[in-house]
Amino acid sequence: MQADLLIHADWVIPVDRPDILEHHAIAIDDGRIAAVLPSGEAREQIDAGEQLALPGHALIPGLINAHTHSPMALFRGLADDLPLMTWLHDHIWPAEARWAHEEFVGDGSRLAIAEMIRGGTTCFNDMYFFPDVTGRVAARAGMRAAVGLIAIDFPSTWAADADGYLERGIAVHDQFRGDPLIHTAFAPHAPYSVSDAPLQRIATLAHELDLPVHIHVHETQAEISGSLEQHGVRPIERLRDVGLIDPSLIAVHMTQLEDDEIRLLADSGGQIVHCPQSNLKLASGHCPVVRLMDAGINVALGTDGAASNNDLDMFSEMQTAALLAKGVAADACALPAEAALRMATLSGARALGIDDLTGSLTPGKSADIVAIDLGQPETQPVYHPLSQLVYAAGREQVRHVWIRGRQVLKQRTLTTIDLDDTLARARIWRERIGEQSS
Amino acid sequence: MQADLLIHADWVIPVDRPDILEHHAIAIDDGRIAAVLPSGEAREQIDAGEQLALPGHALIPGLINAHTHSPMALFRGLADDLPLMTWLHDHIWPAEARWAHEEFVGDGSRLAIAEMIRGGTTCFNDMYFFPDVTGRVAARAGMRAAVGLIAIDFPSTWAADADGYLERGIAVHDQFRGDPLIHTAFAPHAPYSVSDAPLQRIATLAHELDLPVHIHVHETQAEISGSLEQHGVRPIERLRDVGLIDPSLIAVHMTQLEDDEIRLLADSGGQIVHCPQSNLKLASGHCPVVRLMDAGINVALGTDGAASNNDLDMFSEMQTAALLAKGVAADACALPAEAALRMATLSGARALGIDDLTGSLTPGKSADIVAIDLGQPETQPVYHPLSQLVYAAGREQVRHVWIRGRQVLKQRTLTTIDLDDTLARARIWRERIGEQSS
Repeated sequence: MQADLLIHADWVIPVDRPDILEHHAIAIDDGRIAAVLPSGEAREQIDAGEQLALPGHALIPGLINAHTHSPMALFRGLADDLPLMTWLHDHIWPAEARWAHEEFVGDGSRLAIAEMIRGGTTCFNDMYFFPDVTGRVAARAGMRAAVGLIAIDFPSTWAADADGYLERGIAVHDQFRGDPLIHTAFAPHAPYSVSDAPLQRIATLAHELDLPVHIHVHETQAEISGSLEQHGVRPIERLRDVGLIDPSLIAVHMTQLEDDEIRLLADSGGQIVHCPQSNLKLASGHCPVVRLMDAGINVALGTDGAASNNDLDMFSEMQTAALLAKGVAADACALPAEAALRMATLSGARALGIDDLTGSLTPGKSADIVAIDLGQPETQPVYHPLSQLVYAAGREQVRHVWIRGRQVLKQRTLTTIDLDDTLARARIWRERIGEQSS
Repeated sequence: MQADLLIHADWVIPVDRPDILEHHAIAIDDGRIAAVLPSGEAREQIDAGEQLALPGHALIPGLINAHTHSPMALFRGLADDLPLMTWLHDHIWPAEARWAHEEFVGDGSRLAIAEMIRGGTTCFNDMYFFPDVTGRVAARAGMRAAVGLIAIDFPSTWAADADGYLERGIAVHDQFRGDPLIHTAFAPHAPYSVSDAPLQRIATLAHELDLPVHIHVHETQAEISGSLEQHGVRPIERLRDVGLIDPSLIAVHMTQLEDDEIRLLADSGGQIVHCPQSNLKLASGHCPVVRLMDAGINVALGTDGAASNNDLDMFSEMQTAALLAKGVAADACALPAEAALRMATLSGARALGIDDLTGSLTPGKSADIVAIDLGQPETQPVYHPLSQLVYAAGREQVRHVWIRGRQVLKQRTLTTIDLDDTLARARIWRERIGEQSS
């Protein structure tokens, strides 16, 4: 067998099967995983253009950040220690009204993608204005993304009204059709910020185009009370009534859930994205991940935007998810390390409908691979590599990253993004936005 | 004024005062902070042997890990996803009975200290067998520590019975008397593992020697039930009855507290150490930090040992403390960034009774200082340096560390610890212990 690259590591963690493969190699050919096999056999059987030996490293599938707002990296730390509605109404929405233009989205997405690649994320599910810009920046960086075709009731520089949002969204979808890296999803902001008519149109269009629908749902108790007051029903009932509770649903947050709502979601085949750090930081409540997973619901993991987290670090998010699930369930066995890693990889791919393409180290899938160095003092000794990955490893231990077989991080250096220029642009935005907000 | 070293940074965060000083410098002389002043004035007024300019960096007091078991770094990840008592009885205590000898303690402490210095920790409060060994390793590394004069009812290679533990403890205290870096504290393990007689003797000795008493208290609900069954009272009542509820108390965990117990602690002047990641991981419960601080109790922050965390990362611990407090209090304004940093610095020094010496960037105090690089993409842009430190910065952004004015981390390289040898020893222990436990 021929391969472009053969990567040998002490541990290969495929995620789609329970075992950890010691002293194995991954063969990459034409952007895909061609084989996963013992290193000894690989050296004998595979005629590789290049070989890379990584002692002390683990190879894992690239992490999938299943919910973020990448351009908001430029608002990182702008307003902290505030509840969701104060934070949104008094800080974030005014800042967005003033700043969220194309140039901002381009620079913010690039900063976010630099951070995500450095932290082992190879795919992100985004929701923001100017998704075409984010898609182009991601494609140029060799990054996989699902860009959200955003819809919201209030006007923005992206679109003036419901029709405008959908029209521009469809145009973005058309623009990236067939792109090997850039996927699309409808992204109505939330039940409280999008009315019934556009939600219904999105439900119809999502079925026609076979696209996921990415939406914030049941983030806070206040959202539920508001919906009961305004519509007489809880938000999930409204989504069901407009036809959005089905397998295409990617419902983000879900901190407030009653038993019959969990059953409804389980029966529908809908997906949930858990954002533990954002939910804690905004005191939004706890997503009952163990109960959801026990009900058979696919639960993915997301960082949310950098303005409410304040980083896009999926290693830290995995750790928080695994720790918090134990605290919330009052059970130290809840969400063990392997479940946290699966949530951050294969479950994310499933949520986005791209698990045939990525999310595990499976021959035939795209070579979206992360090499992490467990030889650092912070993760020594290694009894169980999964424990080290989830409970002790840091983003800085990510040493190499490949997406579609292209190496986008090499010895911690970004190969597709000009980091100096990205940081210089961030400093310029700091001056502009800081002036305004102080 | 003369100084050995003048460090200039974009931000100096003293912690003992609310302001953040922009473009300031710290003058270090003879191991102490001689002055904190604007960089311009410093260049004019101070005749410094050496100057170091750190654009994009923040200077903060060295972090104080107020509760750990440093040698347990060698058990990192040995047994995870298990409840406290199963973890202790079936895994940790048997492993300790087999392995916790002098050589293990020396190698484990060194690995832990390497990790802590790399993560910006300049002082740790330890509880383990062979505290003399940990103290010697810390002193050699130039690390500040409070080593615990451990007491526990069961025999170990360190001591055979209550008298033995106290005798050896006093000898360790004598050995380090007057040491500028190594402090001591009594460290009875927990109310459930130490009987009344040794607890009473420790109360008496602690008063005579003016030493803190470092003890796990009210870690789990099971501990309370067990005490009610065995002694007819809750553990805190037992500690009060033996005379241990006073300002010298360093009570660790405290996840189960009734209102009158909070009042008792507040009135006594006792100290609490919060270990949020360990409490989550072992599903022990939540320490009500906001209520404790509102009651006027000094609350410090600790990682616990690496076997139950699984790292000794005080940046990650600060982030978890700040996030979890919001979740537990259902208030996004709870434990803001500045309070989290104070908890990890000055409050730790206060708990150990060494706040005259360290814990803030105050002229006259020991030069225990950390320089952290906020110029990385993960913490850009910087609107509020405190937000970036607590919610976004990672341990890897710590670039330089000084303890008593001695630079122990320089451009991320340890200057006092042979890292290669430390890691080689960790790998040897991995082979020994892994054989046994598999």
